[in-house]
Amino acid sequence: MSRHDAVEVITAKRDRGELSDSQIDWVIDAYTRGEVADEQMAALAMAILLNGMVPREIARWTAAMIASGERMDFSGLSRPTADKHSTGGVGDKITLPLAPLVAACGVAVPQLSGRGLGHTGGTLDKLESIPGWRASLTNAEMLAQLEDVGAVICAAGDGLAPADKKLYALRDVTGTVEAIPLIASSIMSKKIAEGTGALVLDVKVGTGAFMKDEARARELAETMVALGQDAGVRTVALLTDMSTPLGLTAGNAIEVAESVEVLAGGGPADVVELTVALAREMLAGAGVTDVDPAERLADGSAMDAWNAMVRAQGGDPEAPLPQAKESHVVRADASGTLTRLDAMAVGLAAWRLGAGRARKEDPVQAGAGVVWHARPGDEVTQGEPLFTLLTDEPERFERALSTLEDGYDIDDAASYTPAPLVIDRIG
Amino acid sequence: MSRHDAVEVITAKRDRGELSDSQIDWVIDAYTRGEVADEQMAALAMAILLNGMVPREIARWTAAMIASGERMDFSGLSRPTADKHSTGGVGDKITLPLAPLVAACGVAVPQLSGRGLGHTGGTLDKLESIPGWRASLTNAEMLAQLEDVGAVICAAGDGLAPADKKLYALRDVTGTVEAIPLIASSIMSKKIAEGTGALVLDVKVGTGAFMKDEARARELAETMVALGQDAGVRTVALLTDMSTPLGLTAGNAIEVAESVEVLAGGGPADVVELTVALAREMLAGAGVTDVDPAERLADGSAMDAWNAMVRAQGGDPEAPLPQAKESHVVRADASGTLTRLDAMAVGLAAWRLGAGRARKEDPVQAGAGVVWHARPGDEVTQGEPLFTLLTDEPERFERALSTLEDGYDIDDAASYTPAPLVIDRIG
Repeated sequence: MSRHDAVEVITAKRDRGELSDSQIDWVIDAYTRGEVADEQMAALAMAILLNGMVPREIARWTAAMIASGERMDFSGLSRPTADKHSTGGVGDKITLPLAPLVAACGVAVPQLSGRGLGHTGGTLDKLESIPGWRASLTNAEMLAQLEDVGAVICAAGDGLAPADKKLYALRDVTGTVEAIPLIASSIMSKKIAEGTGALVLDVKVGTGAFMKDEARARELAETMVALGQDAGVRTVALLTDMSTPLGLTAGNAIEVAESVEVLAGGGPADVVELTVALAREMLAGAGVTDVDPAERLADGSAMDAWNAMVRAQGGDPEAPLPQAKESHVVRADASGTLTRLDAMAVGLAAWRLGAGRARKEDPVQAGAGVVWHARPGDEVTQGEPLFTLLTDEPERFERALSTLEDGYDIDDAASYTPAPLVIDRIG
Repeated sequence: MSRHDAVEVITAKRDRGELSDSQIDWVIDAYTRGEVADEQMAALAMAILLNGMVPREIARWTAAMIASGERMDFSGLSRPTADKHSTGGVGDKITLPLAPLVAACGVAVPQLSGRGLGHTGGTLDKLESIPGWRASLTNAEMLAQLEDVGAVICAAGDGLAPADKKLYALRDVTGTVEAIPLIASSIMSKKIAEGTGALVLDVKVGTGAFMKDEARARELAETMVALGQDAGVRTVALLTDMSTPLGLTAGNAIEVAESVEVLAGGGPADVVELTVALAREMLAGAGVTDVDPAERLADGSAMDAWNAMVRAQGGDPEAPLPQAKESHVVRADASGTLTRLDAMAVGLAAWRLGAGRARKEDPVQAGAGVVWHARPGDEVTQGEPLFTLLTDEPERFERALSTLEDGYDIDDAASYTPAPLVIDRIG
C-alpha cells in the first residue's frame, strides 16, 4: 500500500480535488489502525460533506471499508439470498413481516440490523421485546438458520466493515452524518460485505425521514444503487413517503404486534402494501418471479416462517408481549377529517416516551410508544380517542404531548390530498 | 454561560449559518476545558475554512480566545509600547534589529515570539544561537527588562490564549491551518492578550510566504487590522514581498550575524529598508513622531540596545557565534544577471540543511543554513560562488542542492524587473 499523509489527503479534498484510489485505500486502512487520528478523519469527513465526491471516489471508499473487515459468503446455501435496507422511518416495522414473508417465498433473507438512535426505532429493539429473543448470533448460527428457516434478523458482528463502525460513531458527534457519499458508503459497505445476492433499498423521504427533501433522497438512492450494481449485488431502490408514519403504531412491542397482524393476513393497509411491494422487488432480484407474496401472507406460510424465525433465536412467539405501565389517551378536539399526521412529531413523541434512546448505551422501554387511531383521510369524531401514549414513566407524558400538539390537523375532507406511498423506483 | 452542544455549533457553520456570540463563547471555553473534543473542533475548523466567518464572528472568536487565558498589562511602564508580527518569511530576521532599534527610539517592544516550523525560521531559534541566551522569562522579568532595556524578545508563556495554543496544534494536523478567520484570530488573540499599545503587522506575500496570493494576503491583513483596532490596539499592516528571500542569509546564527551588521550601520539594503519602515510604523503607532530610526542605526544607539537586550537574557553579544561543521559552495554556471531567486527554494534548502524542524520537538542546528552571494538584479560571473550551504551533517547537502537547482535564473539584465519590497500599507 502506498504511503500517504493525513494532511495531504485532507487538503486534497478541502481544495476540491478528487482523492486517488491509493489515497482512499490508505486513509481508510490507516484510520482503522489508528494511525490517522479521529480529529483528522473528522476534518476529512467535513471536507467530503461540503465538497462532495465523484462516483469513483465513493465506490473506492466503499470498497476500502469492505476491505477493512471480513466478508460473508452465502454461496453454499440451497437458495438465493435477498436483503432490504431502510434509511429509517417512524413506525417502520416492515422488516419484521418482510423477512419471513420472503423466506416463505423461497428466498433466504440475511438481515444484519442495527439498534435505533433518535426518533426512528431500531429493528433489533423491536424484536427484543419478544420474551427470550436474542439478537446476537455467531456466523455459523446465522448460516444454519438461513438454511433451516430461510430468514434471520440479527445484530451485525464486529467483523463486518470495522472502518464503518468507527467512522459512523465519529460522524455522529462531529456534525458529519449528512454527507451523501458517507451515508451511501456506510450502508452499502455493510450490505455488500454481508454477501447478499440481491438488495432492495427503501429510501424514505419526508418530515419523518432522514432526508426531508426528495431530490437529496433520490441522489442517495441513485448513489447506493450504483454502488450495489458495481459490486455485483442486484440492487434497486424504492423512494417511499415518510411524511406520515407507517401503520398505526410507533414503539417496540406494539410494532411487533402490528407486524404479527400483517402476517396473520390483516394489519394496516399501508404496511401490507409496502411489505408486499418490497417482497416483490426482493424476489425479482433473487430471480424468483413465479411466487406471489400476497398469497403467502394469506395462506399462513409467512406466519409459519415468522414463528420459526423467532423460535430459532430463542424467542417465544406465543408469549404475551410486554405492556407499558401507564397510558394516556388524547381525544379529538373537533370532528372532521384527519388531514395531516406528521411522522416527525409522532416519532419524537414515541422517543420521548422511552421507545428510543438518546445515547447508544441507553436502554429502551419495550412497551413504550404511540398508537394512533386514525390515519390521514380517516373521519374522526370530537371526543373519541385519537392517540394512546404508552410509557412506564408517566413523567414522560408532558413532553411527548407537547411534541404531538402541532403534529396533526383535523379539517374538512376537501383539504386532504392523498399522497402515494411508493414515490418512485430506481434501478 | 449559555449551554450549547458541539454538534449544534458545527452544523450551524456547516450549513453556512453565522455562529452567535453565545455559541462562540461556549465552544472556545468548552474546547479549552476538553468538553468539546478534538474531532469536534477539527470538523468545526474545516467548516469555518470552507464556509468562512463574518467580521463579528471573527472578533468574537478572537475575544473568546483571549478570555481563555491571562492578559498582560504594560500600562505601568514609563514609555509607550509597540510590537510587530510577521506572518513568516525566508531570511526574515527583521525582529532582531527592529526590537532594539525601536527601543533606542524610546518605545518599549514586548515581543512574545515563537519557534519555527517548516521552511520559515523562528525568531527564538535564531536568538538561541547566541551563547547563553535564554528565551523563557517570567512575566516579572519581562516587565523589568522592558522598563530597563526597552526591548524583550522571549517565548510566549502558556498563560496567553491557551485556547489558541490547543487549536493551533490541532489545525496543524488537520489541514485547517489555511483559514483566514482562524489565522487572524490566532495571531491577534495573542497580540491583544500580550497588551501592546500599538501593533505593526508584516504580512508577507509571494512564493516563500504562507500566502502566495496578494488578494488573500490583503484579506488577512485587513481582517487583522480590523481586529486590532476594534480591541483598542493601534494596528497597521504592511504588505511586503516574499517572492525573494530577505537579505543574504537564511538560517539561525548567520541571520544573527546579518542582523548585527544592520545594527552596526551596514547590512543588506532590503533588510535595512524593511527594518526602518517597520520601525517608523511602530513609532507612529506609539505616538512618537520626532525620532528618525535611521539615525539611531547610524549613531550606534540601536546596537547599544541590542547588546543590553541580549545580556539581560543571559547572552554574550561578544561571544563568537556557532559555525556549521561543513560547507558546500555552489558556483554560477553562467555569467549574466541573477533575475530570480526563489524564496521557497532557499527556505526549503535551509530547512533541509538543519536550520528548521519538521516536528515541533525536533532540535535545530545553530550553524546551518544558506548564504547567497548575489541578490536579484546583481551581475554574476561564471565560476564564482553563488551559494554557500552550511550544515553539521554533510549527508544533508544533496537534498538541499536539489531544492535550490530550480530556485534561481541567470539571464540577461533585460529580463529582470525589480519588484517593490513594501507593496502596500493597510490601516
